Amino acid sequence: MAHLGAELTEVAEGRVRIVLPSRPELTQQHGYFHAGATSSIADSAGGYAAYTLFPEDTEVLTVEYKINLLAPAVGDHLEAVGTVLKPGRTLTVCQLEVFGVQGERRKLVANGQQTLIRVDRPATGA
Amino acid sequence: MAHLGAELTEVAEGRVRIVLPSRPELTQQHGYFHAGATSSIADSAGGYAAYTLFPEDTEVLTVEYKINLLAPAVGDHLEAVGTVLKPGRTLTVCQLEVFGVQGERRKLVANGQQTLIRVDRPATGA
Amino acid sequence: MAHLGAELTEVAEGRVRIVLPSRPELTQQHGYFHAGATSSIADSAGGYAAYTLFPEDTEVLTVEYKINLLAPAVGDHLEAVGTVLKPGRTLTVCQLEVFGVQGERRKLVANGQQTLIRVDRPATGA
Amino acid sequence: MAHLGAELTEVAEGRVRIVLPSRPELTQQHGYFHAGATSSIADSAGGYAAYTLFPEDTEVLTVEYKINLLAPAVGDHLEAVGTVLKPGRTLTVCQLEVFGVQGERRKLVANGQQTLIRVDRPATGA
Repeated sequence: MAHLGAELTEVAEGRVRIVLPSRPELTQQHGYFHAGATSSIADSAGGYAAYTLFPEDTEVLTVEYKINLLAPAVGDHLEAVGTVLKPGRTLTVCQLEVFGVQGERRKLVANGQQTLIRVDRPATGA
Repeated sequence: MAHLGAELTEVAEGRVRIVLPSRPELTQQHGYFHAGATSSIADSAGGYAAYTLFPEDTEVLTVEYKINLLAPAVGDHLEAVGTVLKPGRTLTVCQLEVFGVQGERRKLVANGQQTLIRVDRPATGA
Repeated sequence: MAHLGAELTEVAEGRVRIVLPSRPELTQQHGYFHAGATSSIADSAGGYAAYTLFPEDTEVLTVEYKINLLAPAVGDHLEAVGTVLKPGRTLTVCQLEVFGVQGERRKLVANGQQTLIRVDRPATGA
Repeated sequence: MAHLGAELTEVAEGRVRIVLPSRPELTQQHGYFHAGATSSIADSAGGYAAYTLFPEDTEVLTVEYKINLLAPAVGDHLEAVGTVLKPGRTLTVCQLEVFGVQGERRKLVANGQQTLIRVDRPATGA
């Protein structure tokens, strides 16, 4: 996240929003964001969304996700929205959406689904 | 790919290998590679594997992929292998594997499946 | 569909609903619908949803889908909803939802995402 | 499984094979197996493969799966192979393959990936 320059802009229970401004290293020759950047913020948005539902001493790990890249990821920034579809004691399932935003224009560029597992963090941190 | 520091180390028909050396920006506090890095090189390996089967004036785009993160992605480098399972005139399906490599130790850390579409590149480039 | 006893109960542009009444052959010892039945109607709902957007002489085939089985599929019937997320000339992506319905109670039991391809049907049929 | 007429023909540690003979109710107008039948035996093959690795008093449930339908599922029978890629105390990941078999001809018609969860079965059965 920090490496990419992404930022958490909204945190609600079971739903978070991440914004990733366009930067030359994140885009290819046509100015599109790389699929890797799109997927990364989608995955992170789901992880944070799940995390909002758990106590602080737990960790949430991605088990798997599936993502469809629906359209070229263009815009002055990408916006990823992670939404918990089904919370669980062990497993949580999230919906992932990524929008390409250019001024007033906001277009769905990727859509996915993700499974996460809750892990109790060791008491001593690390 | 270039941004991440990844390198194509093997290119055969329908199969490529990508190596990504560990770097502080790619890893988190425990020294594990970020899921985003793991997924990115998996996706790229599949894309290049499909590309080896097509004429030069075509482009290959990821339609979708699904990836399971099986184990912490540790090692001095990651190795992603993309293998074409089913080539096609329009759609191609690849298997994606990512290994964490530390000296002699090589462990499967992620496994995925990907659908790609072949697009004829406009003659004038761009 | 006919084999399972499922029925199309709602057809709108880009969205269809399929209902599958419970029957002993479709359920296991606990009265839950088999995962196979749940997945089949989800897949069909997406296929029909895509089909509503195309001319009659085209065919729509499932390229792939991913489904999360979120909860035991209980109820006197299942209801599958397929919704087109992104239509396309070649590929269409749908969201798949399956609900277990028992009287007034309606619970999301499965959620998925599907990619379909449009194929022009040969003029002579067959 | 019984409903479909499928049969477990091979059971090894972490790997099982299921055979589904062609029957009119399982095929469509062209003689292809329905996608629902293909997916069902793929899902079952993965479930049984995982189950071979666990003690008898445990149950294995499908969390999710993703399947690519690579080619029309033709043949006098389908053969589904489930192989454990990564066993785990809680989660197990399997590869799923389905072949269409006609005499000597054996063709990969579907390929998938599946996540399963192990659940301790209550001592009293039910």
